Order: sequence, then structure tokens, then C-alpha cells
Amino acid sequence: MAKRQSKRLGKQTLKMQNPPAILSHASVVGTKEAQGPLKDWFDVTLSDDMCGKSTFEQAENEILLTATRMAVKRAGLAQDDVHFFLAGDLLNQIVSASFAARELTMPFFGLYGACSTMCESLSLGSILIDGGFADTVLCASCSHFATAERQYRNPLELGSQRPPAAQWTVTGAGSTLLGAEGKGPFVEMVTVGKVNDWGISDANNMGAAMAPAAVDTLFTHFEDTGRRPEDYDLIATGDLGAIGSEILREMMGQHGIDMGPHYTDCGLEIYDREAQDVHAGGSGCGCVASVLNSYLLKRLEQGDFERILVCATGALHSPTTSLQGETIPGIAHAVSIVRRKGE
Amino acid sequence: MAKRQSKRLGKQTLKMQNPPAILSHASVVGTKEAQGPLKDWFDVTLSDDMCGKSTFEQAENEILLTATRMAVKRAGLAQDDVHFFLAGDLLNQIVSASFAARELTMPFFGLYGACSTMCESLSLGSILIDGGFADTVLCASCSHFATAERQYRNPLELGSQRPPAAQWTVTGAGSTLLGAEGKGPFVEMVTVGKVNDWGISDANNMGAAMAPAAVDTLFTHFEDTGRRPEDYDLIATGDLGAIGSEILREMMGQHGIDMGPHYTDCGLEIYDREAQDVHAGGSGCGCVASVLNSYLLKRLEQGDFERILVCATGALHSPTTSLQGETIPGIAHAVSIVRRKGE
Repeated sequence: MAKRQSKRLGKQTLKMQNPPAILSHASVVGTKEAQGPLKDWFDVTLSDDMCGKSTFEQAENEILLTATRMAVKRAGLAQDDVHFFLAGDLLNQIVSASFAARELTMPFFGLYGACSTMCESLSLGSILIDGGFADTVLCASCSHFATAERQYRNPLELGSQRPPAAQWTVTGAGSTLLGAEGKGPFVEMVTVGKVNDWGISDANNMGAAMAPAAVDTLFTHFEDTGRRPEDYDLIATGDLGAIGSEILREMMGQHGIDMGPHYTDCGLEIYDREAQDVHAGGSGCGCVASVLNSYLLKRLEQGDFERILVCATGALHSPTTSLQGETIPGIAHAVSIVRRKGE
Repeated sequence: MAKRQSKRLGKQTLKMQNPPAILSHASVVGTKEAQGPLKDWFDVTLSDDMCGKSTFEQAENEILLTATRMAVKRAGLAQDDVHFFLAGDLLNQIVSASFAARELTMPFFGLYGACSTMCESLSLGSILIDGGFADTVLCASCSHFATAERQYRNPLELGSQRPPAAQWTVTGAGSTLLGAEGKGPFVEMVTVGKVNDWGISDANNMGAAMAPAAVDTLFTHFEDTGRRPEDYDLIATGDLGAIGSEILREMMGQHGIDMGPHYTDCGLEIYDREAQDVHAGGSGCGCVASVLNSYLLKRLEQGDFERILVCATGALHSPTTSLQGETIPGIAHAVSIVRRKGE
């Protein structure tokens, strides 16, 4: 048997020996996102958030299917060429991902990391490829404003008022097809997060609940790798929004790390907060999934960036735990992506 | 860079190059399971299904914590020595696993494969170890009769009558600690399942909904490996119960494969169906998790078996999809475990 070589770096970071290539990617967003600042970067923008279906849940399933099939097609592959499908979403029993897996008929690992799921799928997908277990892995995630609102808070029909700390769940899906060989970009490293809970119990303040987890993962990433924020052309958290990203900057500063001018949050990029009335910004699994698989990867591919760090953040509560008085734990997984190998 | 070696066998099977060792395991079950035929095999049997907590959800979280901490302790390790925690459960947003991860403070991958989750975690855990990404991975799953009934069907307080095809969700948890080095048993291969949906829409007939997925995974496993049922001393599905396991035997027979005398189902083993009034048998993530991590692994360790195949089965519906008229897709993941390397 071959000698087993460790790919661990520090406590929580994994360094790919043969960095998996991003063969293709695709993004689909809803009508509100299609009016935001990133509108020209998305592959598909819906003219109807129902997507021609009769329920919001079916619509969410449909946008995930569109994004995944588009990525497979763009890579010049057939569904059967894909070795594994790794996906998850915000709905109970991750039905968007499971029902998409039924149509895609690929061997499937269902994941749940709330809004951190896109990076969870990229992490495990990279591990499958670098470990020699797959040549092609499809990673994806999605969310829908209407399904998330009625499941986590109130049905839209109630017309409930949104508090200032609330974020707007993105209607969108993103998918990344990873391969063992390709011209890149490449997934270079992943830092797997721990669950952090600093006692936030307000289900309308997700940014504050998730920020400590992002701080923990980013701080550990810098410690494990010996890098600093300035080693990245861009660092993007998933959906901390205005409040969470401000907390992150401050907490990182307390750790002696200045996040600098190249830090942003996908929840801040996807909407015009003032004009689009989204309060603290965007959120949802589809936020980082759609922004990464359009704006971020396209800018990386066109050479605007050489190396980026994407840190997707998730709030791991359920309405049941909140009603039972529990606080909201958060998690964050970071993925480092480079334009060329050896960067 | 080292040459990347494929560990793929056929379409969906992964063969470990250096089979990960099972360092330790632990099981916890509730009061009903403590009266069943396997009662003497479990590590902890509760005298109170509330586990001293004030809600059923907190109780479920507690049994998962007990099972995971026990496995870590038995291996002579501290929490900090475990590189990753991979777990999931049946509850919305897998809160049992997420809240356990908060206490265990290990880097965490949240999984959702319904009742197939134990084998999903063992599969990805083995991949992490064999791929050189971890030396120790804690894999776990759990369920609780009372939390599952009120979430998927009706609260117990309603006293709803159970139809004959219904299965009884196991109150139980199981955990397996995998390591890069050890005296075994060892995870030799995993076969990752696809989603199968044969149109069953009755949420009280999980066995029939999941059986086609188990057939697909087992048939593929035999095709990928060139093995036959007689190559295993025991083949155990997760929780097909009386109806599903009968369907499985029949469908495998139609494929020309006689499952023979060494096939069983954990949902049939855990209860005395007549005396304990459980109708079609046991079910839930905790069913295969508790039976594997007690009875099956202990019998393997004491030499009653040399090689077993465990195929955990999951139904990927949610109450929302069922109410919207969707059918129930199923998935199954199989893990082959051997007592000694090279078996």
C-alpha cells in the first residue's frame, strides 16, 4: 500500500495535494436580485419568482436544477459523467437538494450547514477529488425568499413588518463543477469550521449570530496557514450583512487582524441596501452560492484576482429550538481559490 | 506532487487504500428499545425517555452527546484529539447534531440523509481518513420517537392511530470513532447511493418508499465489486422493516440475486414486533446507528462475523413536500466492514 500523506495544515485547514479544478459554474437568481448591482454577472435571471411552478418549494427546486444542469453542460459533460452530487439548502429535510438529486440521478451526499452549505459542498467535493475518490463532483446550494420566510419566520401573506436587523433571503442558486484535471481556477485549501454560539437568540439578527463563527474560522485559517488578509485579493464572507460584517471587522481587530480594504460580504454585494429596502443585506444559502458562481469566479477567471478566500456562514437554529428558548449557533467554512496552480 | 491514484471501483463504490480502523463505538437507546431483543448489547439504556430534560428535542440532543462522548473516551482520546465530527439526524435543520457539535467543539460537517445518515457519515469519515485529511473522525446519528412523531406525523398527545405499515422511530443514538491506525475492525469499501423514487406517497409506509433505493445500492455494490450476498457473513439494511425488507428480497430476486439467509434489517432486529406493538418494525436514524454500534460491531469484534455489509436507508421527504402531493424519494448508502485487514 502507498504511504499515506497528511494534508493537514494546523488545526482545521486542509491543503489539497493536487488542487481540484473548477471546470464550470452557473448561477440563477430571482427578480429582486436581477435588479441589484450584480445583475449583469448572473447567468440566468428569472422574470417570475414562481419559475412557472405552482408552489414556492417547486420553484426553488427548479432554480437549483437549472443551475446544476447548466454547469454540467458548460463543462461539456453528461449527467452520467459526474461522479458525485453534493448539495443542501435551507428547507426542512433539504428537499430542494434531495429532489434535485432525484432528477440528476448522480450518487448523492446530502449536506446541511445552513447558509454555509456552498463552502461545505466545495470542501467535501475537493476532498473527494484530491483523495482519489472522484474525477468530477458537482457542488451546489440554493434558497428562495418565499420558502425561507414562511418556514423560518412568517408566511409572506401575513405582511409582517421586518425589523432593521433582518436580512433578505436571496432567491438564487449556484453550482460549481469540480474536476481532477482542468485549467482552473483551483481549490487550494479549505478551513473547516467549528460551531460557535455567543448567545444571540434573535432570529431576525442572523448576522450577529453568525459573525463569531466567521471570526473563528478566519482567525484559524490565518493561524494555520501563516497568511494574512493582504495575501488575498478578496476575502468574502457569505451573508453576514451590514451588522455581522461590522462585528467581524471589529472582532478580528481585537485579535490583531485588520481585515483591510479587500474584505466584503456577499450579502452586501448582491443588493442595493437603500434602494432595494433589504435592511441589513442579503442572506440564505443562495446568497454566497449565486455570488461566488458568477461575480467572484468570473472576476477571478478574467484576472482581476489571483487568489480569493470565500467564507460561507450558517446559522444552525430551527424555529423549534428558538421557541424552546435556545440561542443560535453559527458555523463557517472557508475555501481558498486560486486562478493558477502554485499561486 | 504524488501521483493521484483512483480508489473508484465500478460506478459508485469506493475502495479504501488504507482501510480506516474503527477505534471505538457507543450506543444509547430509550426505554422501549431497552425491552427489545437487543437490550443486552446496548451500552446505555435510558430509564426515562426525557433523559432528565424538559423537551423531547433536548433529550435527543443529550443521547447523541452521551453516545459521542462515550466513543471518544473509550478510545482514550480527548475531544480536542478528534479532527472532525460528521453527523446528522431527522430533525428540521439537524438541530440534534448541530447542537451536539456546539458542545463537542470539533470541526463539523453537518449531514442530512434521513435514516441513511449513519452510513453517510461513515462513508465521508472514511474518505477523510483514507485521503489523508484526518487521523480521527467521529461519525454519529440519532433519533427520538417523540420528536420524529410530532415533526413528521402528529404529536403524541393526539393519540393518533398507527396504520399497519407504520414503523416505530427508534429512540437511540450511535457513534463510531474512525482512525487512521488501529487494530480494527476496518471500513473496507463504501457504495454511495443515488436517489430513487418509485412513486410511494404514503408517509406511513417508509419501508416501501426506501426499498428501491436499497435495491439499487446493493445491486450496484455487487456489480461494482463482483461480490455476491454469500461473500458477507451478514448484510443488514437500516430500517426497511417487515414490508420494505420483503420488497427488497423480492426485487433483488428479480435481478437474479438471492439475498439468502444472512440478510436482515436493523428495524426487524431491534424490537419484538408482536410483543412490542411496533407494527412493521423500527425506523429512524437511531435505528441503524444504535444497532450497528452495539450488536453488529460487537459480534464482528468477537469473531462471529468476518465481513458485514451495512446499508442504511433514508426517505428524503418532508411534511411540506407530502402535503404538496410529492412522492417520497429514497436513498441508501452501503458500508462494508471487515474484522481484519485483507479479508
